[in-house]
Amino acid sequence: MDKLYEAVAERGHVCIGLDTAADYVPEKERRFAATDAGAVFGFNRAIIDATADIAACYKVQIAYYEELGIEGLKTYAQTLKYIHEKNALAIADIKRGDIADTAARYAKAHFDGEFEADFVTLTPYLGMDSIEPWLQWADKKGKGAFVLMRTSNKGRHDFECLEIDKSAAEKRRLYNAVGDKLSELASARQGKHGYGAFGAVVGAEGQSPQEREEVAAICATYPNLFFLIPGYGAQGGAASDAALLLRDGNGGVVNASRSILKAWQKGCLAPDQAARQAVIEMRDAILKAVK
Amino acid sequence: MDKLYEAVAERGHVCIGLDTAADYVPEKERRFAATDAGAVFGFNRAIIDATADIAACYKVQIAYYEELGIEGLKTYAQTLKYIHEKNALAIADIKRGDIADTAARYAKAHFDGEFEADFVTLTPYLGMDSIEPWLQWADKKGKGAFVLMRTSNKGRHDFECLEIDKSAAEKRRLYNAVGDKLSELASARQGKHGYGAFGAVVGAEGQSPQEREEVAAICATYPNLFFLIPGYGAQGGAASDAALLLRDGNGGVVNASRSILKAWQKGCLAPDQAARQAVIEMRDAILKAVK
Repeated sequence: MDKLYEAVAERGHVCIGLDTAADYVPEKERRFAATDAGAVFGFNRAIIDATADIAACYKVQIAYYEELGIEGLKTYAQTLKYIHEKNALAIADIKRGDIADTAARYAKAHFDGEFEADFVTLTPYLGMDSIEPWLQWADKKGKGAFVLMRTSNKGRHDFECLEIDKSAAEKRRLYNAVGDKLSELASARQGKHGYGAFGAVVGAEGQSPQEREEVAAICATYPNLFFLIPGYGAQGGAASDAALLLRDGNGGVVNASRSILKAWQKGCLAPDQAARQAVIEMRDAILKAVK
Repeated sequence: MDKLYEAVAERGHVCIGLDTAADYVPEKERRFAATDAGAVFGFNRAIIDATADIAACYKVQIAYYEELGIEGLKTYAQTLKYIHEKNALAIADIKRGDIADTAARYAKAHFDGEFEADFVTLTPYLGMDSIEPWLQWADKKGKGAFVLMRTSNKGRHDFECLEIDKSAAEKRRLYNAVGDKLSELASARQGKHGYGAFGAVVGAEGQSPQEREEVAAICATYPNLFFLIPGYGAQGGAASDAALLLRDGNGGVVNASRSILKAWQKGCLAPDQAARQAVIEMRDAILKAVK
């Protein structure tokens, strides 16, 4: 996570979510593109050009590209490549989780092939033997991952937040079991800024006061986990929510997608300039909240 | 699950896992193919041609195709299409799990686009709002899904098998919480054979006597869940393990991959004929075990 830590220190906490649906592209530009997938790439390129100096990283949600089939996945690969050409960092939001042999193939696909990214997102249900095969790429090429821990969708109460040990002095939930294992992994390979190669996805948006305490406790309990924090903006999160998870003014990136990509729809700026302005506002709001 | 139930009744329980790595293809055939992805498709086609009358369905593990990049994903799409041309059923083993908006896009990609399959596999960590968006396709086009519940990899002990309620009279584990929710979903849309559109992935291979009891209890507790049972053959499972989950001689499909795809390496038959023989042996062993 060293390179992401340094990107945050230099450019702020904003992770731009390139969850680009074809209908986010202005009708005018979309009409001139040969395909929807082509329109999406042109749009992504303009956003990246306008924001690379003020964003910590980009998160590319593969579902939006898979929906467009093979052409969409070419755009996905092209977008990752363009992010790298700009010397920026890319998180592949793929939420993979599979048994060891299969995980090794996924890891090769997303850390070494046409779809190469710097980080991926993973899902932990199957257990740590579905996470560990990704780790060799941390040693080999400095890659990293964010594992789902406690998200902010309503469904988090179904499983993530289940109490697993009612008799313990402090409440322990499923996400604590995940956090404990991730923290072990992280401490075995701590980088120079104190974070391991594997961090966690933790959401903070729209929580009750009691839940805000839980989120703050996650931050305090797992000091070596770097956080990917979703849900800012369109999903309802605010800078003060995200700040619960940002220790010493660093330690995480905050993702926003629609509020940046669709900012142009609210004014008269072009999409790239509207996005730039939205990122600056978001970056400054978070910097203010962590002070 | 009606169509899968009927396929099992007609052709037995075998689900052929097309987790085809390029090095499963005989050197001779591989040399003549333009690309590894092309070799994989030729191999898959031969296996499908030789087994469509004796297999319940095919499960295509997308990781093996993703590893080969865009060309690999074309082979993935081509394989699904070929399965449909043969009037056979395809499970897309993609283990997706994401928030609602994103899940809806994935569902469109895998139930309605270039990558259309009959069933998908899903992972439940994020909660039921990550599962439900797939359900509209059950109504619209008769699609179904298998959600990870209790797998047989070692890592199952990390989270899936955690006790969530030590004070309850009967032990309850995380997978029970998942099973309860899935069973609710299933009972809301029960097909004519008593199964819902959403079943569960439950492994039975290589378990201790106490764990075999747990597996048998899953089968008894959730009578409306159709099972996708991995791990037969190369992963160490046997017919008697799988039988723990097959009620009334139906109620599940049993996946094997390497033991079928690589059967040719152990004798002098061509890959397709060796696969056919391996499927027949497996089918008959399971039929014997459930009697």
